[in-house]
Amino acid sequence: MTEYKIALVGFGGVNRGLAQLIAERNATWQAELGFSLSIVGVTDLFLGSIIDRNGLDASTLASLPAAKGAFAQLPGGSAEAFNEAVIKQSGADIVAEATFTNPVDGEPAATFCRWALEAGKHVVTTNKGPIALHGAELKQLAKANGVAFEYEGSVMSGTPVLRLANKTLAGAEVRGFEGILNGTSNYVLTRMEEGLSFDEAVAKAQELGYAEADPSADVDGYDVRLKVVILANELLDAHLQVSDVACNGIRGISSADIERVRDSGARWKLIGSARREDDGSVRASVEARLLPSWHPLIGISGATNAVSFETALLGAVTVSGPGAGRIETAFALLSDIVAIHASRHKA
Amino acid sequence: MTEYKIALVGFGGVNRGLAQLIAERNATWQAELGFSLSIVGVTDLFLGSIIDRNGLDASTLASLPAAKGAFAQLPGGSAEAFNEAVIKQSGADIVAEATFTNPVDGEPAATFCRWALEAGKHVVTTNKGPIALHGAELKQLAKANGVAFEYEGSVMSGTPVLRLANKTLAGAEVRGFEGILNGTSNYVLTRMEEGLSFDEAVAKAQELGYAEADPSADVDGYDVRLKVVILANELLDAHLQVSDVACNGIRGISSADIERVRDSGARWKLIGSARREDDGSVRASVEARLLPSWHPLIGISGATNAVSFETALLGAVTVSGPGAGRIETAFALLSDIVAIHASRHKA
Repeated sequence: MTEYKIALVGFGGVNRGLAQLIAERNATWQAELGFSLSIVGVTDLFLGSIIDRNGLDASTLASLPAAKGAFAQLPGGSAEAFNEAVIKQSGADIVAEATFTNPVDGEPAATFCRWALEAGKHVVTTNKGPIALHGAELKQLAKANGVAFEYEGSVMSGTPVLRLANKTLAGAEVRGFEGILNGTSNYVLTRMEEGLSFDEAVAKAQELGYAEADPSADVDGYDVRLKVVILANELLDAHLQVSDVACNGIRGISSADIERVRDSGARWKLIGSARREDDGSVRASVEARLLPSWHPLIGISGATNAVSFETALLGAVTVSGPGAGRIETAFALLSDIVAIHASRHKA
Repeated sequence: MTEYKIALVGFGGVNRGLAQLIAERNATWQAELGFSLSIVGVTDLFLGSIIDRNGLDASTLASLPAAKGAFAQLPGGSAEAFNEAVIKQSGADIVAEATFTNPVDGEPAATFCRWALEAGKHVVTTNKGPIALHGAELKQLAKANGVAFEYEGSVMSGTPVLRLANKTLAGAEVRGFEGILNGTSNYVLTRMEEGLSFDEAVAKAQELGYAEADPSADVDGYDVRLKVVILANELLDAHLQVSDVACNGIRGISSADIERVRDSGARWKLIGSARREDDGSVRASVEARLLPSWHPLIGISGATNAVSFETALLGAVTVSGPGAGRIETAFALLSDIVAIHASRHKA
């Protein structure tokens, strides 16, 4: 049996969810997955930090109050976030990075990943920023240091999208993909189909906590654009920058547009897509599209996300599932660790 | 680089499709998958057999006429099917079993699998019979002989269902599943929604080659039942026999039933499902169900198949794709070989 020592960087919903899963399920994992996890450090800009190379109690961590400097309440804890020490000096084998997404430069998460990889630690992350903006560099850094860099949760939380395409579809020749990759905008469109105006639907999404006070990242397609870059670079071996992807959101879709197609079975959806062209180039976009009734993504309603892969040998293969959620995204980190474990313990 | 020697048992559409893929793509696979395949033997009850331990030309095999005893036309070939010799004496590392499905006792495919596993050869198969009827025994036999036994293609052709659940969802705790697992019956229901009667829709399916002259295996649920047994035993660690699964098909669904729900968004579907109950038992069934408009399988039309997994950590995760097809099923064999290769070559 293997025990991995893990450091948690960022202690919002996702890594707190992972701590909760560890508290509840570590014994099960030993039996069913072949490993358990021991949390040796946690750091968070708001909560502070704590290190114990002998292992911290996951249950205590999971129930820490969400108060500024709260780690100072625990023995050996501090109100200050000693990020570098937690990453480099806690004795972790794996660093779980789940800080906020910075769509401009990916920082400070990108630096956290670099520190960990350079120190010879595996990195698992759910953060779109470092992958979309610095993915190639970080993958190279991981390779140079002989460690894994896994980020299933950067697209569609724990729903297996990257690993589905990379592992289970290996050899099927993925040519492109179309995805509904933002639950908030899809929820807004679904409510508009039920008769709400755009503004009413956005207000409803805000009420439910799906949309931020400024809904722009969701409804203008910027969130989807990061995911399109990640998927295209990963699955189509593209070398896209965020600025290479034309991006339009759903503000242009009116209730009249939706009303007009109601009886046809067609539906408006915000689609992030990329495709390898015959000349080898990869074209990617984010835009509202009117999907025909037979389209594989036509049934994806509300906050569900989905990606349909176009493959040479299988035609369309589509996976749908949650695109967000605290435990759902924490599972993405677990699934990354399962993959790391499997790659080091072959049958 | 690795070259696997492969023997093809059964040379209908599927293994012929694999030969075609090998002829077209072996060089690509060397570069992209890390291995190539060399066909060292083929046997088929109708076509005869051929063995060459130095490798047969895949292109020649793929274009062999579909005439009784046709292998006798090739140098060294025979009109007789020397199954045991091809399996045991061709020098194969891997045996690809793709003979017809026998839903009663799984023979002769089960015997072919046993011969191969006992001789220390990996087995990949697309055949539901041996898995549904003798899966536990054959897995045990593979384990005892230190070889792999893979059968992704036994459910939904090459669409990754077993491997999605077993590998990428490991740790998500699959509690149950619902699936649309038979393209013919789903096609019949879709055409009935468009106004055809049951008999007209079945005739249309027969015209397109989806349904056999006797459509019973498809429309009465027997084909789905085998797949339910395979999925339940594999994913829920059930120990179901075929006779444990209550089975009803779609003959009971009338045009009036479909007409009645037309405007509600609900749809009739033939659902194969299984679920682990709180007492640890697994209940499985095949039956026509009226799915509500929000159901993850509601959009699965025509010949497409899909499975929705119910998981503890992610809720519903659904995968859809082709459920049949010559090349699609041949890809399943390739994906099994990719998995075997990965399990033997660490990162």
